[in-house]
Amino acid sequence: MNKGRLEAFSDGVLAIIITIMVLEIKVPHGHELSDLKPLIPIFLSYVLSFIYIGIYWNNHHHMLQTVKHVSGDVLWANLHLLFWLSLIPFVTGWLGENKFKAMPMALYGIILLMAALAYFLLQRRIIRNQGEGSLLKKAIGRDIKGKISPVVYLISIAMSFVSGWAAGAGYVLVALIWLIPDRRIERILKEE
Amino acid sequence: MNKGRLEAFSDGVLAIIITIMVLEIKVPHGHELSDLKPLIPIFLSYVLSFIYIGIYWNNHHHMLQTVKHVSGDVLWANLHLLFWLSLIPFVTGWLGENKFKAMPMALYGIILLMAALAYFLLQRRIIRNQGEGSLLKKAIGRDIKGKISPVVYLISIAMSFVSGWAAGAGYVLVALIWLIPDRRIERILKEE
Amino acid sequence: MNKGRLEAFSDGVLAIIITIMVLEIKVPHGHELSDLKPLIPIFLSYVLSFIYIGIYWNNHHHMLQTVKHVSGDVLWANLHLLFWLSLIPFVTGWLGENKFKAMPMALYGIILLMAALAYFLLQRRIIRNQGEGSLLKKAIGRDIKGKISPVVYLISIAMSFVSGWAAGAGYVLVALIWLIPDRRIERILKEE
Amino acid sequence: MNKGRLEAFSDGVLAIIITIMVLEIKVPHGHELSDLKPLIPIFLSYVLSFIYIGIYWNNHHHMLQTVKHVSGDVLWANLHLLFWLSLIPFVTGWLGENKFKAMPMALYGIILLMAALAYFLLQRRIIRNQGEGSLLKKAIGRDIKGKISPVVYLISIAMSFVSGWAAGAGYVLVALIWLIPDRRIERILKEE
Repeated sequence: MNKGRLEAFSDGVLAIIITIMVLEIKVPHGHELSDLKPLIPIFLSYVLSFIYIGIYWNNHHHMLQTVKHVSGDVLWANLHLLFWLSLIPFVTGWLGENKFKAMPMALYGIILLMAALAYFLLQRRIIRNQGEGSLLKKAIGRDIKGKISPVVYLISIAMSFVSGWAAGAGYVLVALIWLIPDRRIERILKEE
Repeated sequence: MNKGRLEAFSDGVLAIIITIMVLEIKVPHGHELSDLKPLIPIFLSYVLSFIYIGIYWNNHHHMLQTVKHVSGDVLWANLHLLFWLSLIPFVTGWLGENKFKAMPMALYGIILLMAALAYFLLQRRIIRNQGEGSLLKKAIGRDIKGKISPVVYLISIAMSFVSGWAAGAGYVLVALIWLIPDRRIERILKEE
Repeated sequence: MNKGRLEAFSDGVLAIIITIMVLEIKVPHGHELSDLKPLIPIFLSYVLSFIYIGIYWNNHHHMLQTVKHVSGDVLWANLHLLFWLSLIPFVTGWLGENKFKAMPMALYGIILLMAALAYFLLQRRIIRNQGEGSLLKKAIGRDIKGKISPVVYLISIAMSFVSGWAAGAGYVLVALIWLIPDRRIERILKEE
Repeated sequence: MNKGRLEAFSDGVLAIIITIMVLEIKVPHGHELSDLKPLIPIFLSYVLSFIYIGIYWNNHHHMLQTVKHVSGDVLWANLHLLFWLSLIPFVTGWLGENKFKAMPMALYGIILLMAALAYFLLQRRIIRNQGEGSLLKKAIGRDIKGKISPVVYLISIAMSFVSGWAAGAGYVLVALIWLIPDRRIERILKEE
């Protein structure tokens, strides 16, 4: 089985997810600057989710470059990842309408956590299929980012019920960890 | 005629179908956990439909790997399949808003039945075009799953008017039959 | 310039057009069979538009198989076609909500007419670019279907103000002309 | 890293952006010609934005034809461009509902300006990656259009608060500059 359609289908789903989120930013009826003000939290949650989907697309792209053939179990592990990512527009919308409230803040983190878990499972399945000397295994190395992220998600989910700001800071932090080019962050982490 | 665009177009339509269904899960205005409660049946019907579209994408992917060239009749048989699948977001939305009510439950099954029929017609057309020694014919073998599914759909449609739960169990059962890897289910079916 | 991205972008736009039309079939709140009744005209207009987009995708697919390289003017002629096709979900929705009323019926035909015109312009541009011995020119032959369609559209648009049914019959007729495999319809037209 | 998926993902996002904008043209309940009248500004802003997305797709297509391999920073510069373009449906909707009002008119220009800036950054990053003798650098030449556009945007944004019509004329002008085939406009600009 070649990987072409897996990539095409994933690209399609991710492109739609990233774009339909903008439909949550409802066009206001008024035409004053003040009419945009209630949209700010919705816009900010859109930006954060856009970056997250961008990170997933980027990582997915890199991961599949180490793969030549895909088996049935990889197709399903990939659909499992797309399922959790497909819920991001919903939690983004809920977050945007209820800025820094406990439950939306926590649910946002739970979906991110499930997506991270699904990504991890997909990664493991590909590594297992590649067998000894897996290219992907070498590429991810100790996978420090992949291990830190779920920990920060868990802390942020718990923090949601104490301080919405702290939880939000956690989600932004994980996004930044992935955005900063690999070598730099790894050097920083080594130095610590 | 090469099959590249047929795959690309089908991937596009399936990616959109699987993603726009999430728009049916309307963002609640409140921010309590209880505000999510009415969304549970909508979420469950989303999960079921997501799995069904995933199965169709998966099977479509496998089917087309046996194909080299596509003729005009295959293009239309494929569009016919996409037509019934395109109605799944609608019936999913209706089901989600009216949990276990007779008519939505039955209509969900009818659309699944029509999609299964369209898939069968597409399959037969490809086999006919491949002529003697058709690769697809060999690949599907006795096509036990393909024959059981419409029977379960028909029973579930009838059951919709007696017990919504029983009908739902039927739809879940068919999804499971397709999800479980082929060899295992075939061994189980042989043993019976 | 290669044609790969032109095809990919067109497939994407057509896949989205064909799928978002289903969003016009709003999920009813009730759960009785009678709640579906007002949706029948919306469903029928969806079916008709689905077939039209399918025909355009099919023809577009065939047309581009005669093409190797695309120039800037072809890209824009193609976008012009996609523009008119992108309005089909809107006119389909308007038609569905106002069954057989004069203006929606006429506007539906006008958009179909503009799309047919845009298709014709795209075709002519490709033929001109291919120069003498154009493969596309040979493939379309006398282009009888392409010449009949706008005439039927024009008659149907005029008929909209007399009888919605007659206009609708015209639109269905054109769809049928394109659906019936080429050789048969051409033989029929020859015999007349 | 090959550029295939970058193109596929961008095509997907642009195809969705260009198509979901049509959802802002809400189907009217009435069936008279007069019911379409309030939709005219929405339709006009749709046409303008359709052309802009078409121009971006076209330019993006050309730009990437000079590229063989893409690095991580190009992926993110590309996502940055897609981010600003993804806001076009929102500003188009706001503009359409508030024809020629100052704030929507200005915001439309701001988003266009940000997209132009993001395009410029993407272009510069590709040129830097290509190093000496960059093919893209040669292709864009003095990039007169690319330099004029942000100036016109800035003037139009300022004009929004004086005359909506003047601002709109500015946005139409930039679109025309890009629509007219390169050689002609360059000759015109030379002659001045």
